[in-house]
Amino acid sequence: MTTEDTISRPSASLDEIFHPRSVAVVGVSKAVKGFSGVSLGFLLACKEAGCENLYPVNPKYDEIEGLRCYPGVRDIPGPVDHVISCVPVRVVDALVDDCIAKGVRSIHFFTAGFTETGDEEMAAMERRLIAKVTAAGIRAIGPNCMGLYVPGSGLAFMPGSPVERGAVGFVSQSGGNAGDMIFTSAVRGIRYSKVVSYGNAADLGESELLDYLAGDPETEVIATYVEGVRDGRRFFSALKKAAAIKPVVILKGGRTAAGTRAVMSHTASLAGSAEVFAALCRQVNAVSVNSVDEMVDVVTAFRFMAPPEGRGVAVVGGGGGFSVHAADEIDEAGLECPPLPADVQAALSEFTPAAGTSVRNPVDTMATYDPPSLERTIALTGGAPNIHAVMFHASVSLGAGRRALRGMGGFNPEQLVDMVVDQVVRGRDACGVPVVIVLRPPLDVEGMERASVLQERLWRAGFPVFPSIPRAGNAIAKLVRWYERRAGRTP
Amino acid sequence: MTTEDTISRPSASLDEIFHPRSVAVVGVSKAVKGFSGVSLGFLLACKEAGCENLYPVNPKYDEIEGLRCYPGVRDIPGPVDHVISCVPVRVVDALVDDCIAKGVRSIHFFTAGFTETGDEEMAAMERRLIAKVTAAGIRAIGPNCMGLYVPGSGLAFMPGSPVERGAVGFVSQSGGNAGDMIFTSAVRGIRYSKVVSYGNAADLGESELLDYLAGDPETEVIATYVEGVRDGRRFFSALKKAAAIKPVVILKGGRTAAGTRAVMSHTASLAGSAEVFAALCRQVNAVSVNSVDEMVDVVTAFRFMAPPEGRGVAVVGGGGGFSVHAADEIDEAGLECPPLPADVQAALSEFTPAAGTSVRNPVDTMATYDPPSLERTIALTGGAPNIHAVMFHASVSLGAGRRALRGMGGFNPEQLVDMVVDQVVRGRDACGVPVVIVLRPPLDVEGMERASVLQERLWRAGFPVFPSIPRAGNAIAKLVRWYERRAGRTP
Repeated sequence: MTTEDTISRPSASLDEIFHPRSVAVVGVSKAVKGFSGVSLGFLLACKEAGCENLYPVNPKYDEIEGLRCYPGVRDIPGPVDHVISCVPVRVVDALVDDCIAKGVRSIHFFTAGFTETGDEEMAAMERRLIAKVTAAGIRAIGPNCMGLYVPGSGLAFMPGSPVERGAVGFVSQSGGNAGDMIFTSAVRGIRYSKVVSYGNAADLGESELLDYLAGDPETEVIATYVEGVRDGRRFFSALKKAAAIKPVVILKGGRTAAGTRAVMSHTASLAGSAEVFAALCRQVNAVSVNSVDEMVDVVTAFRFMAPPEGRGVAVVGGGGGFSVHAADEIDEAGLECPPLPADVQAALSEFTPAAGTSVRNPVDTMATYDPPSLERTIALTGGAPNIHAVMFHASVSLGAGRRALRGMGGFNPEQLVDMVVDQVVRGRDACGVPVVIVLRPPLDVEGMERASVLQERLWRAGFPVFPSIPRAGNAIAKLVRWYERRAGRTP
Repeated sequence: MTTEDTISRPSASLDEIFHPRSVAVVGVSKAVKGFSGVSLGFLLACKEAGCENLYPVNPKYDEIEGLRCYPGVRDIPGPVDHVISCVPVRVVDALVDDCIAKGVRSIHFFTAGFTETGDEEMAAMERRLIAKVTAAGIRAIGPNCMGLYVPGSGLAFMPGSPVERGAVGFVSQSGGNAGDMIFTSAVRGIRYSKVVSYGNAADLGESELLDYLAGDPETEVIATYVEGVRDGRRFFSALKKAAAIKPVVILKGGRTAAGTRAVMSHTASLAGSAEVFAALCRQVNAVSVNSVDEMVDVVTAFRFMAPPEGRGVAVVGGGGGFSVHAADEIDEAGLECPPLPADVQAALSEFTPAAGTSVRNPVDTMATYDPPSLERTIALTGGAPNIHAVMFHASVSLGAGRRALRGMGGFNPEQLVDMVVDQVVRGRDACGVPVVIVLRPPLDVEGMERASVLQERLWRAGFPVFPSIPRAGNAIAKLVRWYERRAGRTP
């Protein structure tokens, strides 16, 4: 295969890029510090993800991490579809020549130091490089990004990422945000179809990726982080089309003057006005969020909740002060926390002690520690005609004091976890409305041991789990609003 | 000592209540479930807290938890100053007679089922009971509350509470919120002088407690949670007086219609308008917060930070997307994230690689993993004339992927903790402005093991630690505003 042959090849499709037959990590180092450590991370991550034809490339080594290491891309036997470039900016041009000669289909440039430096010479170099790459039918991801995480194809950029595939697609201008999103959402049960960190977007960018995910049968929910967009009209069109087909959750970086300055240093994008952006999202029914944490919450709601048929929420949990806050927070989230009907209150009163509790709503109860009561409480509250979702606040892991008291409740930790999961499953099945769980972040190692087991058991049983009532309320409200707007019920 | 003697005694002072010579827990059960478990919790908590004369009272037992158990209060040898009543509401009257006969000085009624039930008969019973108690010179705490946590006096209501005393006083209408506050703030280094959960406030209430803490030399910062106040004018006066002397952080339950209904079920208080309350707080320079978590943040700022001399914040950490969010979030918190002066940027550039980083502000750097760089980065940014505080974002514990990559950074976890603490201490000492730490909540057990060690090392070294940039920014902004208002610089 000669350079002339490859230049005439058509551009790789996104489907080809997401399903490479082989991957080379070029310029990967055995050093584990700083950016070199990140390059080794690519290799380890793809190995963990099950990449079958994975080639480290570095003339300094014969092997890395048990894999045979090649001096150059052209020395690899057989085809190389996807190249991860970890070489410094000064030698990237030579690598591109090798890739063209080898017939590579896509190059992810982890390599940074281009337009984002603010240096016009480096910006011009980026333009020349990308022009050469694309003229050869090769698609470029980046530069200045973390690239691809496609669990089904053995592509990943951080070791320890879940190897299972899922139904969320994430298009992220920032690699750090992509990593935050993957790991923060993993413990809530979120898994991904495709994640793309696209950095400077010199070739492949947000609009084309949105188009792809909109039509991707593996992707049911789309999340996206953008700092700025190259072509506003094109992006608006892609967003509108995608949001009409499936939920699109969008996080915008650079909402303020200070954030806009930081965007320029980060990916050299022009961040537009926050107001224009918010109006655009409302217009196309994209769900706008303000942080990665909020994005995780909203994606969790879309993946783990059927849409509630209204805004009435019953809150079930222990503690009167908590109940007061819960009612305020549900109200402030744009949901409702209405008093339960008299007959439901009466039914709850039959097994809820009068002293130190409440059956109105929020339901302040010790039922968590009294098995049949929890199931009955959820079934009764969720069955009320003015209630469309039940929020159960499980505080099994708060601190040493709670544990000392509650640990004495006649249950060991494993029993308590089994009991809570069993009860909420039965309660949900009995009432038929969505049951969401609020599990406060634990404060210490022992609390984390309990909470992480409970959290995983809960999401595996199909529950959306949130770390606080306001965060749960906000995600539910955004879910409800999305479905209402889609049905044309809310402007 | 006869009943007649005690009736003529003057009311116990709050100083007496906070320093009892002996404590009886009446109606304590060996059962560990539900409210019985809470009663046993009082006994265990006071035992842990070092209460020297601690008497369980219950005619059913001869001993509980290694302590001799008495059939009634009158059977206890020697004086009994403080009684924790865990008896049911139907026998509380008989207990009060015993307490009067015994010359008790204060009774904490954990006993619930009075006014908060909404039943007029029970409300009348509460009024009669409190009238009898106070006529005998006994002060009543509650009913329907968790009572006293005074580490210096061996008083506590939850096992596992820190035994060390501290300089924060907390007056809380809710016992659950008091527990949340104690345990949530404990891991941030907050310790308490006095915590009072006062429930229905039938005798001792928010205004008298505020007055006391305002004049208490052990208390430097006051936190308070109120659902409603009995006497608005009296409370306003107490709040104004206290807030003029020391920082008062106030959380109001029942801000919305739903929350106000929950307040009625919880402590039978009348929650006033949120707008009036907010205006009141501004007027007297009390710091209003909306959740226990925000209260912990603001108290942490007051305890661990000298007031910054302006609003300029430099953010130091790794990751470009993080930097963009940080800049937005600092701005939205009411602080400023200005570009660093050219000479500071030049000095940072000498040791910060150009590719994939930024030295403008936020400073996006890998310095965390490169010891002298972190100290120098903090020293240089904190030394800039437009910077009044440095926020260091330490992401040592985010998830498995980060750990796999960073764990390879040539440091084992202990070394990494030592290195970070050492570097931030040196950086802070070199620049002389407050350095605050943002340490994201860990996602798994291994992350918690690292994060909890690092967090404790950091607060013991005098750093305020926050779980996110928006939460840190909000707390700093409220701290700055408090000092500005006190100096008359901000309306």
